[in-house]
Amino acid sequence: MAVVGGEAVEEDVAVAAMVVAALLSKSMPLLEQAVLDLCCTTLPESVAIADLGWNDFNAVFKSLPTFHEKMKEENGEEFGPCHVAAVPGSFYHKLFPSRRLHFVHSSCSLHWLSQVPPELLNKQITNKGKIYLSKTSSPALIDAYASQFQRDFSLFLKLRSEETVPGGRMVLSLMARRTPDPVSDESCLLWDLLAQALQGLVSEGLIAEEKLDSYNAPYYQPYTEDLETGIENDGSFSINGLEIMVLPWDSASGGQNYDRPTTAQKIAKSMKAVQEPMLASHFGAEIMDPLFKRLMEIIAADTREVEHVSVLVSMTRKA
Amino acid sequence: MAVVGGEAVEEDVAVAAMVVAALLSKSMPLLEQAVLDLCCTTLPESVAIADLGWNDFNAVFKSLPTFHEKMKEENGEEFGPCHVAAVPGSFYHKLFPSRRLHFVHSSCSLHWLSQVPPELLNKQITNKGKIYLSKTSSPALIDAYASQFQRDFSLFLKLRSEETVPGGRMVLSLMARRTPDPVSDESCLLWDLLAQALQGLVSEGLIAEEKLDSYNAPYYQPYTEDLETGIENDGSFSINGLEIMVLPWDSASGGQNYDRPTTAQKIAKSMKAVQEPMLASHFGAEIMDPLFKRLMEIIAADTREVEHVSVLVSMTRKA
Repeated sequence: MAVVGGEAVEEDVAVAAMVVAALLSKSMPLLEQAVLDLCCTTLPESVAIADLGWNDFNAVFKSLPTFHEKMKEENGEEFGPCHVAAVPGSFYHKLFPSRRLHFVHSSCSLHWLSQVPPELLNKQITNKGKIYLSKTSSPALIDAYASQFQRDFSLFLKLRSEETVPGGRMVLSLMARRTPDPVSDESCLLWDLLAQALQGLVSEGLIAEEKLDSYNAPYYQPYTEDLETGIENDGSFSINGLEIMVLPWDSASGGQNYDRPTTAQKIAKSMKAVQEPMLASHFGAEIMDPLFKRLMEIIAADTREVEHVSVLVSMTRKA
Repeated sequence: MAVVGGEAVEEDVAVAAMVVAALLSKSMPLLEQAVLDLCCTTLPESVAIADLGWNDFNAVFKSLPTFHEKMKEENGEEFGPCHVAAVPGSFYHKLFPSRRLHFVHSSCSLHWLSQVPPELLNKQITNKGKIYLSKTSSPALIDAYASQFQRDFSLFLKLRSEETVPGGRMVLSLMARRTPDPVSDESCLLWDLLAQALQGLVSEGLIAEEKLDSYNAPYYQPYTEDLETGIENDGSFSINGLEIMVLPWDSASGGQNYDRPTTAQKIAKSMKAVQEPMLASHFGAEIMDPLFKRLMEIIAADTREVEHVSVLVSMTRKA
């Protein structure tokens, strides 16, 4: 998903990028091991690599000349060639011809669902004043979210298993939780605070109550063990390694010792960078600034802290 | 190349798109024949098609859901799959792995050179007050442009011959001329009128004279017979057919009987859509509106008319 805009937006993106970069650097050892394993076992004449996620294609394309220069510097003039292409579409659809890919990578994306659970869309169940799971969620709501993730994740595995050659590798990272409890603070607190900010704009009359009640995040933070079960049930991939990556509460501030208000500001900026396109299309672009200002105040006034938990799983396509 | 902007820009693009659509519709029979020939002779399990040109990737990507729907409607649910990817880079570089493509198409793009002729860039020769070839061009300038095109076109053929499978097809269309004379009105008049508009802004003090003198279009409209010679000299492709396509002077107005001022407006809009990004990066975005307003006035006040000439050539990669 492309994020465009002026300097303010760029700063939000920079803060969010810092968090992603911290996660990527943690995931490097497992990622490098997967690449090495692939090269040592089944190195084909040409290697097809897919990186699946939310990308600003224009930014990726602009970065390519520098990338190719660096490749030449590090590997010599004769190295390559390396061909790059952008594939539009959702990773919940088939993206590549069958048995085409040797390596699949997806970073920080698979916690996004293909859609809001249908039970919420058709109003069979409601989620009044909230936008994701919370402490007060009904069992039906919890089930609806868990089932949607299960369907999406098994569809993702099925599609990728078709596209990947036997012996091919796949490394996925996504937001996750270390507890079976689907409404623990670890996975729900920030969504709850964002819902509070939206409720504030409702009471100010800036947002209609029905507008908030009809918005739910197409998001799910799964329990790491459920993820393993999903991969085992699919049966096409064997797990080589699974790692839980934990970033501290104030990781958006780049690991420096900031105070609560500054950390609140960084977290709000980071959330804005990721969520603004979705929220703006539902609530209107004009309320984004007041919304995230209020979110920042709410986080600053709160005392709770949660760690940001991701899971990294490395697997091999079975023969 | 992406064209972005507000409603005014969109209208310019719409006018230019009308001209391209008229050309494409004229080229359809030869294009369809080439596809049929490919399918009847060497239909492989999967067909790789490349469309090379200046594309706004975002616009192409947005049009894909409708495209896939139409494919299903016309061919049934079971048809496909059809995978689409965008490849960044210039077609004067290698874009695909060797022997990968079965069909190559390029529409309205190959008259753009990889660069302004080096003799102009290093000021070995000058082109005072002009931006392309004109009636007053020196033989050295004419040679410089012709040589740059020859180098670029043979590089293009060499690269595509590497990327295309034996028996693969290639259909190219580009602006061309029906006369060996490289400074005929057919290929130079509109550039000359644009240069006049720029000269007008120089005399008004809106553009520095040196700025105009240092701008030259990376463009060449080749003689159709020279194109055939180029393909024969390369030796990798055999020509199946060559067609000269002529659009009337007022084709930008959609074939309706407009008067001279209206036609002038349409032609200026169409030229703006294509040339604005290049001109704006050299002369500054702020002079684009006065420039094309003046161009429109110059065209309206002139009495000359030229037909817009393109060539379409269909060929097969030799075994």
